[in-house]
Amino acid sequence: MPTGCLIGDSSLNNVDFLELIAEDIEEVEELMRSRSEGYHPDLGAAMEHLLSAGGKRIRPKVALLMGKLLEADQRDLILLGASIELLHTATLVHDDLIDGSLLRRGNPTLNSDWSPAATVLTGDYIFAQAAELAAEIGSTEVMGLFAETLAVIVNGEISQLFSRKKLTSRKAYLQRIYEKTGSLFVLATKSAALLSGSAEERIQAAVVYGREIGNAFQIVDDVLDFTGTRETIGKPIGSDLRQGVLTLPTLYYLEEKPDDQVLEKVLAGHHNGADLKEVLGRIKASGVVQRSLQEARKYSHRAVRALEGFPDKSEKQALIDLAEFIVGRDI
Amino acid sequence: MPTGCLIGDSSLNNVDFLELIAEDIEEVEELMRSRSEGYHPDLGAAMEHLLSAGGKRIRPKVALLMGKLLEADQRDLILLGASIELLHTATLVHDDLIDGSLLRRGNPTLNSDWSPAATVLTGDYIFAQAAELAAEIGSTEVMGLFAETLAVIVNGEISQLFSRKKLTSRKAYLQRIYEKTGSLFVLATKSAALLSGSAEERIQAAVVYGREIGNAFQIVDDVLDFTGTRETIGKPIGSDLRQGVLTLPTLYYLEEKPDDQVLEKVLAGHHNGADLKEVLGRIKASGVVQRSLQEARKYSHRAVRALEGFPDKSEKQALIDLAEFIVGRDI
Repeated sequence: MPTGCLIGDSSLNNVDFLELIAEDIEEVEELMRSRSEGYHPDLGAAMEHLLSAGGKRIRPKVALLMGKLLEADQRDLILLGASIELLHTATLVHDDLIDGSLLRRGNPTLNSDWSPAATVLTGDYIFAQAAELAAEIGSTEVMGLFAETLAVIVNGEISQLFSRKKLTSRKAYLQRIYEKTGSLFVLATKSAALLSGSAEERIQAAVVYGREIGNAFQIVDDVLDFTGTRETIGKPIGSDLRQGVLTLPTLYYLEEKPDDQVLEKVLAGHHNGADLKEVLGRIKASGVVQRSLQEARKYSHRAVRALEGFPDKSEKQALIDLAEFIVGRDI
Repeated sequence: MPTGCLIGDSSLNNVDFLELIAEDIEEVEELMRSRSEGYHPDLGAAMEHLLSAGGKRIRPKVALLMGKLLEADQRDLILLGASIELLHTATLVHDDLIDGSLLRRGNPTLNSDWSPAATVLTGDYIFAQAAELAAEIGSTEVMGLFAETLAVIVNGEISQLFSRKKLTSRKAYLQRIYEKTGSLFVLATKSAALLSGSAEERIQAAVVYGREIGNAFQIVDDVLDFTGTRETIGKPIGSDLRQGVLTLPTLYYLEEKPDDQVLEKVLAGHHNGADLKEVLGRIKASGVVQRSLQEARKYSHRAVRALEGFPDKSEKQALIDLAEFIVGRDI
């Protein structure tokens, strides 16, 4: 299978338990694409490039499943799903610029052939589109949560930027993955619950599901940066380490081998390709990958437990299946 | 008077007709500054730097005057004023990065001593804060307008970026100043009118006032890039021409002297300091500055006329005085 196809058609697009929202996701896709029309043509082309690169659309999927389970309005959920995915896309565009990344989802990033100026503005434009869709829902609570989530994500990125090449703690890591990923999943599940008019207790359970599944998802993402292949994850392996970003496997490894000289070199930024390869091999061989996945499973179980009092509908089973699928995925 | 003082204490902070909102503007300032607390300290420092650089705060002033004239809720207007000024500030941060500008309001830009990454993220963070404040107002109409305005501004910047070094028309210029400035003034006046619960006709009149005063303000800003001094405008003279951006004085000049070889060189980007100085001198000597200011006065008069049916209160007189002041200002 050619690479582009594998990435664009990622596993989460082909699982039975998501069949019940397949048409809704089509609507989300259409709505997102419609937001590039009527503006500058180069901008439209950039958005088309970004959206056609695929991606799992996991955030809108979670929003749709939670919202349908709790019987929120269908149109609101489509707007919510598109808004969250665009917010996520905008942060990726700025992230790639900041990291100087050239590949994402197996495709060249905007950053790789656009000027930084065009990349900044395209990200800003996608933020604006996300905000317009969120405003269109017409819920001040959801809009407030949307704005707050953007602040949390950006603050997380700023903290990471300023703490690069510095050692960090497991606590800081957990904070970081919440800011980066958990918060957006919470935006998805909490907004869906708010829009359904559910009682406070249920809204809080939706928050827990979102936060835990988001954190599990990010831990697995960080593990895949060690265990994946360039083909499956759509970017070079070891990107985090190369940029001096410490994730859970490396933190566990450092607890076991605090004096590893090669790792020290890599983290200090004084390394060549061979050093990086050596460190990646050592970390993979050390058992910390399994330990990290075990941690991800804990989060996933907590997410499933949060759904205990929810109505027994097919969407609930799909949310359970999704939580379990996420920690077993390899792309 | 030292430069920093002149810029920070710009003329619009010292005019009698704005005395009636002086305390409100203090509240807006405090609210803006409070948004840097509780986040990464370097981010707080960056926001403090940006906010203490001053600026005329003309957008919140217009929002406050219009809102008080139409008797909108006081707290909503403070939130609105801070939200709009932060949105404006965020776009300036990204703009300075895009232009590579080193000075703004007589102070170094973030861009001049921060990395591009930190600058992008600081702008994003300020967007998020602006969105949070706008959401806090609790009006879905205002939130929708806020998001739409962000899209209009960014689309304008993208159009400008892609059309640099190309000749443009007066029509394109007017479109551009609306996107850049008029739209934000409309956000101020229309939101204030919406929050007051005014009738549709009055809301539309508020839109006209905002659009026309915003456009007048931008034309004068563009003129000051020719007639000001580095001390009064807080950045080097001729910045627009240097970057190949055509504004009204240059467009008028080109209509009169379509074959000016030195201007052609400057617009093509193949110029030295002497060429730029020569062109600036020719444009200033040609009478197009006066023609541009006359055009600005037309917009200002239209703004004043839009207020005709409004209640005769001191805020109305202040809005009239402001419209007249704007076209006579020299900083």
